Amino acid sequence: MEQQQLFITMVLNTWNLHISRTEKFFFDQPDEILLKPIAPGKNRPVYLLGHLVAVHDMMAEIMGIGGRKYQHLDNDFIKNPDGSAVDQYSLDILKQNWKEVHQKLAELFGTLQPEDWFKRHNSVSEEDFAKDPTRNRLNLVINRTTHVAYHLGQLKLVG
Amino acid sequence: MEQQQLFITMVLNTWNLHISRTEKFFFDQPDEILLKPIAPGKNRPVYLLGHLVAVHDMMAEIMGIGGRKYQHLDNDFIKNPDGSAVDQYSLDILKQNWKEVHQKLAELFGTLQPEDWFKRHNSVSEEDFAKDPTRNRLNLVINRTTHVAYHLGQLKLVG
Repeated sequence: MEQQQLFITMVLNTWNLHISRTEKFFFDQPDEILLKPIAPGKNRPVYLLGHLVAVHDMMAEIMGIGGRKYQHLDNDFIKNPDGSAVDQYSLDILKQNWKEVHQKLAELFGTLQPEDWFKRHNSVSEEDFAKDPTRNRLNLVINRTTHVAYHLGQLKLVG
Repeated sequence: MEQQQLFITMVLNTWNLHISRTEKFFFDQPDEILLKPIAPGKNRPVYLLGHLVAVHDMMAEIMGIGGRKYQHLDNDFIKNPDGSAVDQYSLDILKQNWKEVHQKLAELFGTLQPEDWFKRHNSVSEEDFAKDPTRNRLNLVINRTTHVAYHLGQLKLVG
């Protein structure tokens, strides 16, 4: 396997594994578990579901390969902590959003050529990227993979 | 930056970031937090400290670049869940083990040439590696990074 492609496969395999493990949690657990705080005073799984949809929805835009669809979630699931505003969202719709955002990302990732993954993403300036070429699109996937693993560990405390 | 070296830097930066964030947790929290379950009936941080020392202590051996030092922890921190056996371990000594195991790994990682990272690790047979070259030493670091992120998410529920 060509070196670039090998490395991309390593990163995408790890991303896909964590997305599918987290998806399994959200789809297997009954609503009452998804609506109960993980620990007293801490986030509920429903909050982490909306949070991960919103964060992953940003990825295509940051990578410069697509737009957003769920930015209406940002206020209640990124900018603010878990709270009563989250109760207006349907679990079924959030789960459908989860499916769609990851399906869309998989499609977009499939259109990239190996060299495209090593281009700059939009959260870094051209000047900073010239100094630090690790801040590329593939690195964004590495960062989002550790982010989802971090929250999966929390979810598994109730699963 | 040469392509192989770029991949390696991306992976090691993410590993180092998570090790230092997790280390900060263990060294900043008072003993009473480290000795209290994260959620009712769940692991205590002291268990996760010993668990991560033991799991990371295995890395050099799996990568085929060094031996083990803390295998006496395996039984109480890997093979068995958190329990009274963990109480015989001193927090100060476990923290010292944490420092030592990561210092040793950093030294060993520093001795590897770029191409060494893409060689087979010992958890995969030569035959399987020929079929799936993603199962290399660098991939082990990716996997252990998501593992530590998973547990860091849990620790942060009390931090």
